[in-house]
Amino acid sequence: MNDMTPPAHAPLSPGELEAALRAVGAERYHNLHPFHRRLHGGQCTRGQVQAWALNRYYYQSRIPAKDAALISRLPTAELRREWRRRLLDHDGDAPGTGGIERWLKLAEGVGLDRATVESTEAILPGTRFAVDAYVTFVRENSVLEAIASSLTEMFSPGIISERVSGMLKHYDFITETTLAYFTPRLTQAPRDVDFALGYVLQHARSVEQQAAVLAALRFKCDVLWSQLDALDYAYVSPGNIPPGAFVP
Amino acid sequence: MNDMTPPAHAPLSPGELEAALRAVGAERYHNLHPFHRRLHGGQCTRGQVQAWALNRYYYQSRIPAKDAALISRLPTAELRREWRRRLLDHDGDAPGTGGIERWLKLAEGVGLDRATVESTEAILPGTRFAVDAYVTFVRENSVLEAIASSLTEMFSPGIISERVSGMLKHYDFITETTLAYFTPRLTQAPRDVDFALGYVLQHARSVEQQAAVLAALRFKCDVLWSQLDALDYAYVSPGNIPPGAFVP
Repeated sequence: MNDMTPPAHAPLSPGELEAALRAVGAERYHNLHPFHRRLHGGQCTRGQVQAWALNRYYYQSRIPAKDAALISRLPTAELRREWRRRLLDHDGDAPGTGGIERWLKLAEGVGLDRATVESTEAILPGTRFAVDAYVTFVRENSVLEAIASSLTEMFSPGIISERVSGMLKHYDFITETTLAYFTPRLTQAPRDVDFALGYVLQHARSVEQQAAVLAALRFKCDVLWSQLDALDYAYVSPGNIPPGAFVP
Repeated sequence: MNDMTPPAHAPLSPGELEAALRAVGAERYHNLHPFHRRLHGGQCTRGQVQAWALNRYYYQSRIPAKDAALISRLPTAELRREWRRRLLDHDGDAPGTGGIERWLKLAEGVGLDRATVESTEAILPGTRFAVDAYVTFVRENSVLEAIASSLTEMFSPGIISERVSGMLKHYDFITETTLAYFTPRLTQAPRDVDFALGYVLQHARSVEQQAAVLAALRFKCDVLWSQLDALDYAYVSPGNIPPGAFVP
């Protein structure tokens, strides 16, 4: 963890801490990354959109592993029930339902083969390492830091609406059905944030805890940002696709 | 792990397995990466050489964590003694000795501040995630796979001599003293390989074990390659340095 040195001041009020968390997003959330500007602005080729969908699937597929790791560390049934909704959102309650299934439909919608995507064999190593770092972070750090690392969802409604409208406008191979993954996220993410932000503002009381939750959110922004670095490097300039990775 | 499906053939002989391991290096070792060609060929700016030294320090600094994790899993004193030499190589036996210390001298030699390097605060997230993935791999996979993942050292004498001669020739700010890290590696790496390769050839007998050690070596090549992807992306084209990372 970076930046864990406690600053020499009194703890922030809950309102000040929320503002500090939002400031992390304003500086580091991946809506600011050049690859997202390219993706949403219509400058991607179909192959680049495929590479994005293929790699992002690995992130989607590991979110329940991250959430289950956190649930296994939560001390009360009340907290575990609250977090269990996230498993339901991603894994569904029957075959063919849930966020991972909807992401597979998105990947098929942009022309990828479902089995290739599910195998995750052709993703970039940079994607795998960043996503695995997130799961490990939630396993190995405090419950407070693990919950704080989920708070990038505070910033996601904005990027989702920008992404959906931008991609529908600019790519004739993308339809509303393809992007159906994102519709429930617009209600799930704010509901999840209500709980997680409330928990963090209530439990991060000391200067040290507040520094830790801010560092956790910076870490999570790095996880998202780094995945786009890997995509932008491999698929925008020619000659940079690493050995073994997807070739559009 | 990728590519774990056992191929439908008999196990390889030790000689065939060694050839298959060497073929992984011929395709995926990071001497082939564009950033290394740039670094060794004199096309890097001093700032790019600094970024390389700063980020590579994190790899160096975590190698003893990786080796200690493996030692903690080895079953006999004989095996642990063998592997313990690596701790000595990297951590030394007195202050101011060992590979990590020599890497710090390299970093200082190219103009970096020692405290900044040791803090690792300014490294690229892609570096951190790749290196941490290596430590986690050694903790979580079989001892056989963990040992196999060290076998990129089979390929390192070639890259070291190319690097040292290329950097001395092309950069007037680099001296033999700066690159003193690499001199003992030329004898340590072959000695380490003798043991690790012998262990792998002896213990990877089944088709499944052979597929696993080949996948472990591919994984390790990805760890090295991905670090150069992150450097090449962030420091070669303008505008790509992620928030919070070193700015030359």
